[in-house]
Amino acid sequence: MSGPLRGAVVGALLYEGLASMPDEAARLAAAGGVRFEPCHHHAAVGPMAGVTTASMPVFVVENRARGNRAYSTLNEGLGKVLRYGAFAPEVIERLRWFRDILGPALGEAIRRTGGVDGRALIAQALRMGDECHNRNRAASALLIKALAPHLASLDLPPPERARILAFAAGNDHLFLNVGMAACKAAADAAHGLPRSSLVTTMARNGTQFGIRVSGLGDRWFTAEAETPVGLYFAGFGAADANPDIGDSAITETAGIGGFAMGAAPAIVEFVGGTPADALRYTRLMYEITLGENTAYRLPPLDFRGTPTGIDVRLVMQTGILPQINTGIAHREAGIGQIGAGLVKPPRACFESALRALVAERRGG
Amino acid sequence: MSGPLRGAVVGALLYEGLASMPDEAARLAAAGGVRFEPCHHHAAVGPMAGVTTASMPVFVVENRARGNRAYSTLNEGLGKVLRYGAFAPEVIERLRWFRDILGPALGEAIRRTGGVDGRALIAQALRMGDECHNRNRAASALLIKALAPHLASLDLPPPERARILAFAAGNDHLFLNVGMAACKAAADAAHGLPRSSLVTTMARNGTQFGIRVSGLGDRWFTAEAETPVGLYFAGFGAADANPDIGDSAITETAGIGGFAMGAAPAIVEFVGGTPADALRYTRLMYEITLGENTAYRLPPLDFRGTPTGIDVRLVMQTGILPQINTGIAHREAGIGQIGAGLVKPPRACFESALRALVAERRGG
Repeated sequence: MSGPLRGAVVGALLYEGLASMPDEAARLAAAGGVRFEPCHHHAAVGPMAGVTTASMPVFVVENRARGNRAYSTLNEGLGKVLRYGAFAPEVIERLRWFRDILGPALGEAIRRTGGVDGRALIAQALRMGDECHNRNRAASALLIKALAPHLASLDLPPPERARILAFAAGNDHLFLNVGMAACKAAADAAHGLPRSSLVTTMARNGTQFGIRVSGLGDRWFTAEAETPVGLYFAGFGAADANPDIGDSAITETAGIGGFAMGAAPAIVEFVGGTPADALRYTRLMYEITLGENTAYRLPPLDFRGTPTGIDVRLVMQTGILPQINTGIAHREAGIGQIGAGLVKPPRACFESALRALVAERRGG
Repeated sequence: MSGPLRGAVVGALLYEGLASMPDEAARLAAAGGVRFEPCHHHAAVGPMAGVTTASMPVFVVENRARGNRAYSTLNEGLGKVLRYGAFAPEVIERLRWFRDILGPALGEAIRRTGGVDGRALIAQALRMGDECHNRNRAASALLIKALAPHLASLDLPPPERARILAFAAGNDHLFLNVGMAACKAAADAAHGLPRSSLVTTMARNGTQFGIRVSGLGDRWFTAEAETPVGLYFAGFGAADANPDIGDSAITETAGIGGFAMGAAPAIVEFVGGTPADALRYTRLMYEITLGENTAYRLPPLDFRGTPTGIDVRLVMQTGILPQINTGIAHREAGIGQIGAGLVKPPRACFESALRALVAERRGG
């Protein structure tokens, strides 16, 4: 288990009150006292370490066209946060405030809106320089805008209302988890089509990269995760980086994130490269995808729809791997984010998936 | 006086209680019972008809580097609004709510923040697909984000807090007037430099287009305003359009708006043309401007600063006129916005300003 994931597990056990000290939590987890399962096995997604425990509030995203739902925890912002493996007291305190105040408040506000139209919001954000993986500034502001009237009229003490909106305003990744759940709800709806070579999951746990394919049931095709290349915060460098981690590649799986970078030129200041590179990545992704999104359109590409639906066969035919952008976690537990950059899945995942598709076809 | 301006004057007189019926208001104004002065003579700017009266609350933008201030009324949103010449009861009611509730609430919230950093906000918005003249969606969301924590904790009844934030959320041009005042505060600081050929004002009243030049004191150089070319709302067309109107060309004067369209490709859906056109307009403006903004940077142009500071000499040398984008008002009073498009100042303004500069130089 990678450092940041170990750190997040420690933090989660402290948060749930299942351990009172980090050492105790680490021993409990190492001794097999904790059952681990991928978020993806529960219609859920979590960025980076992605640890989701019983008492964490979650966003619920409904795919109203297909009736399925997906879930994701609330984003903690940057700095010392559980998802990057930090477990300091302030991290645990914040999670408890999420559980006791923020989660219920957001829940009530969202219910009062009758539900926020996630597709319309993402479509707007893509016209506002977000790609909704590592740039969520517009989407987060739009979400605040949608919820603020309801949050402002909640029956809470004025300082608590202010704190909720100040936390939201201070977190440019507020929307990330919502967007991920939206992508998950879309991808899950495409899963399980017989013989389909469409990739419906790309996920990483800091050690392995795994994909799942629509026509290949619940099998994971895994290989060792790559380490992202990018820009580092002051004091850190490539030697500190953990390999690729988190469920957030669900955004690329659904055609946004790295696939929509062409519409988010400002992101290169965060992940590296130039605006021309960002356009090039997006254009390249049309080579390995099956469709173009009719709602998510990219103004700099003359409003072309986002390249959507990675095809295992096209990846293997062209040799072009999906372009993912990602936060970079320190490889040791308890430190947190040290940068952001670009990464690709290992080719081996697609190779073994293609073999499995061929085997199914022969067997079928 | 153009139709929309006449309509706005009628509405303003009704709002101020100086007339009780539209006919009465129109007669009062026509009979010389009202004194008119340009916003620009009062360090103020107003979009479209731009009518600003004694009891309207205003945003105050401070140029902290130079100590001057500029003012602008609160933006009313789209549809039936005073600035497009509408004066129906709902228009007047909204203005009264601005005066009694919204203005004081925004004022208190802004004071609690200690002041919103307008330059940082505009810089961000330009990285989020706004050009801050006819696209203010990101800037407005960022302003809401900055004020929401304070608005949410105001001592007002919950439905009033919700109404304030819902109004703000429903108005994608909430920031326009703030941005205009910021541009005015910047432009005014550049006014009055001896012999300077820098344009410090471009404004239109629906009939005439006028410019002022830094080294030419308070003189206006005017000519007949052009009529914008653009896209019309259903049921309207070019024959309904009023000539160019409003102080909002202060945005282009300060190097954003039409000058920054290259970073706002989605705006072409509103004003016409293609994303490539938008880039071309921005690139062209470097030919007639004296500098590049060090804070306002355009990601699609590799983070080049906005083309800033129109030089009368460069306009005349190159024959390139400033590119303005603009809302289009119906030419009759009382109807409102019918579209949006592109327009340029008449060349004659720059011609006469250049002559005056030459005359000053010879005389000096």
